[in-house]
Amino acid sequence: MTVFSPLTHRKFPFMPPLTGIRMATAEAGIKDVNRPDLLFLIFDRTANVAGIFTRSRCPSAPVDHCRAILAHGRACGVVVNSGNANAFTGKKGRTATALTAETAAKVLSCQTNEIYLASTGVIGEPLDATHFIDLLAPLEQQAKENKWFEAAQAIMTTDTFPKGATRQVCLDGHEVIINGIAKGAGMIAPNMATMLSFVATDAPICSSLLQDILREAANTSFNSITVDSDTSTSDTLLLFATGSARKKGVKQIHSRSDPGYQPFAAAVADLFLDLALQVVLDGEGGSKLIEVHITGAVSTVSAKKIAMSIANSPLVKTAVAGEDANWGRVVMAVGKAGEEADRDRLSIWFGPHRFAVNGERDSGYSEKLASQYMRNSQIYIRADIGLGTGEAKVWTCDLTQEYVVINANYRS
Amino acid sequence: MTVFSPLTHRKFPFMPPLTGIRMATAEAGIKDVNRPDLLFLIFDRTANVAGIFTRSRCPSAPVDHCRAILAHGRACGVVVNSGNANAFTGKKGRTATALTAETAAKVLSCQTNEIYLASTGVIGEPLDATHFIDLLAPLEQQAKENKWFEAAQAIMTTDTFPKGATRQVCLDGHEVIINGIAKGAGMIAPNMATMLSFVATDAPICSSLLQDILREAANTSFNSITVDSDTSTSDTLLLFATGSARKKGVKQIHSRSDPGYQPFAAAVADLFLDLALQVVLDGEGGSKLIEVHITGAVSTVSAKKIAMSIANSPLVKTAVAGEDANWGRVVMAVGKAGEEADRDRLSIWFGPHRFAVNGERDSGYSEKLASQYMRNSQIYIRADIGLGTGEAKVWTCDLTQEYVVINANYRS
Repeated sequence: MTVFSPLTHRKFPFMPPLTGIRMATAEAGIKDVNRPDLLFLIFDRTANVAGIFTRSRCPSAPVDHCRAILAHGRACGVVVNSGNANAFTGKKGRTATALTAETAAKVLSCQTNEIYLASTGVIGEPLDATHFIDLLAPLEQQAKENKWFEAAQAIMTTDTFPKGATRQVCLDGHEVIINGIAKGAGMIAPNMATMLSFVATDAPICSSLLQDILREAANTSFNSITVDSDTSTSDTLLLFATGSARKKGVKQIHSRSDPGYQPFAAAVADLFLDLALQVVLDGEGGSKLIEVHITGAVSTVSAKKIAMSIANSPLVKTAVAGEDANWGRVVMAVGKAGEEADRDRLSIWFGPHRFAVNGERDSGYSEKLASQYMRNSQIYIRADIGLGTGEAKVWTCDLTQEYVVINANYRS
Repeated sequence: MTVFSPLTHRKFPFMPPLTGIRMATAEAGIKDVNRPDLLFLIFDRTANVAGIFTRSRCPSAPVDHCRAILAHGRACGVVVNSGNANAFTGKKGRTATALTAETAAKVLSCQTNEIYLASTGVIGEPLDATHFIDLLAPLEQQAKENKWFEAAQAIMTTDTFPKGATRQVCLDGHEVIINGIAKGAGMIAPNMATMLSFVATDAPICSSLLQDILREAANTSFNSITVDSDTSTSDTLLLFATGSARKKGVKQIHSRSDPGYQPFAAAVADLFLDLALQVVLDGEGGSKLIEVHITGAVSTVSAKKIAMSIANSPLVKTAVAGEDANWGRVVMAVGKAGEEADRDRLSIWFGPHRFAVNGERDSGYSEKLASQYMRNSQIYIRADIGLGTGEAKVWTCDLTQEYVVINANYRS
């Protein structure tokens, strides 16, 4: 399975400053007092931007705003608030996004279509932007390049730790940096999975190529995780490229055939997966990370659907929470996926142990070994469908009583 | 909302004996000792039969058996065991079903294709039929017409109460009876929803018409409920018609234009809904019954998909468990359904209270009224999509800590 150390990831990594990207946070009192809930991210020179958003048919007002300006492909700043999703807020919601974008644009002397917005928190509560827009000018004054940790903190809702990741890639003999932050922690389902993630690099890349890199990297990371199968109205992933590494001598990446393309795209994918797994790891109430690996499906698409059927099954997830090697529920989840499967060719592994083969329990099955394996904090479940070469991996967490406690009391 | 009294339903109804249908149960010790886990249902004269089964691609061996013989359309007996699902048991599973059907056929002097089988319980554990087939002959001797309560008890797994329902219909001036039993209580998702249900009538109806009645009635009952979105490998619904009411002077129902068709089909649908709601009411850990009503969708199919998206949302279900009127999560669940929806035409009601209209919170929204409403044991949620006339109702229960406790420890 994917090697992943939760302990090191719960510790926020050292994020090297990215020249030209400054940030500041404030306690705007949007929902609770005494916690940072406003982030202003500032690009000193206009950056290229790529993004993907929730597939919800009821997207939030900020998602509408970002989608509308993405074709322009240029960004000067990002305003993010936590505590209120500004979703299902009708005209008031649009007034709030317009006011925020106009104020931020005025502060940064740019166009409103160069200001990106994101909100996360309770749905349906009108967001009064007049409460915090006056903070944007002083935040611009305070903004510093080394505030990634504070930025990651300000966008948290039910997250238990701030999420960050950084990568360096050598392009044309020079290091370029990719820094990213993300927040979960419920309503995490693919398309997209993380509610909010902002990633920036100093590599010089045009917006359209950046969009391709983002889409492909999200496919095997943010769009391959699920906490509870619920899709947020607010999911937003933005990738910014300032191009400031050009000064060091890094050449612009124009196409997939440029030598820098491959290592850069791979680093972005690696960083996305790191952030996505942190989101799963912090899945509401989750106590174990589960990797579901499907092989032998009729296609990649089919493999991913079967993997998601297992990863979203409450019965599989509660069994893992209870450290019960209930592989019969994996059979059930393969069966309900609606994808091509032949019961009598199906094999199932938990970690290195094959529990079932060719449609029945493995003759070497040992309840003792199985129980021992389930005590691990990371559980690898593989199902081979036995029909083709389609393969996919998805990640989820277990379903615990804590999930119910958190979500039964979220608004209160 | 549908009027439904949980308290009366938790009490097993008086089931009038159905002439020619006898039953007996035994403690075969299949999983646990000291509880009935074997049911033998006997038709003194061959009955007509209709059935529908799980849509799982990994069905149990008994489901395979029943599907194979259903075209024959005639039944003399049913053998049901709880404690072991005989699912994903390979050749051993087929050996067990063959042995059980052969023994029962010998006892009843009929063909093996007139013996129906069902198993419910743990998946993947080989079922040794030699442990209980010797009980079938003595059970045939003991079988009585008035053992519906015992029958309902013997098929229970995690159910907390036995489930039964009865209806009487006047056909040609005579009462005909419909009696049914069912069991849940997890892995309840549509197509089909109840794991096992057996319904019998003395009305005279041919198998093919019985199949139509069954399918239509299941559509708005067993296939409109969900507990946890997980589909069992073993779901089986069988409807038997002995025709013994002919002796009283009831005429055979041959076609939809026969005068008896409509009242009989309506009574079956009503009884199915009764049993289905009992299954939901006893959903693992469930403390509240939730009715989700979608109106204004572009089609009935679309309405049902949106309804299921809400009913299966862990975040909606935990909010109900926490008595939190978190209607924003209903917006989220409409949005993620993938069906046509326009945020700005969406309206949402909880009980009689409209919480949201035209894409934003209702101006008359009162948190106090909302909180009061959520204390009810039955919660009605309506979403009007505002696009068409498509309508559907589905039922579910809330998601509580108890669900996790039950399912984290199911096998142990």
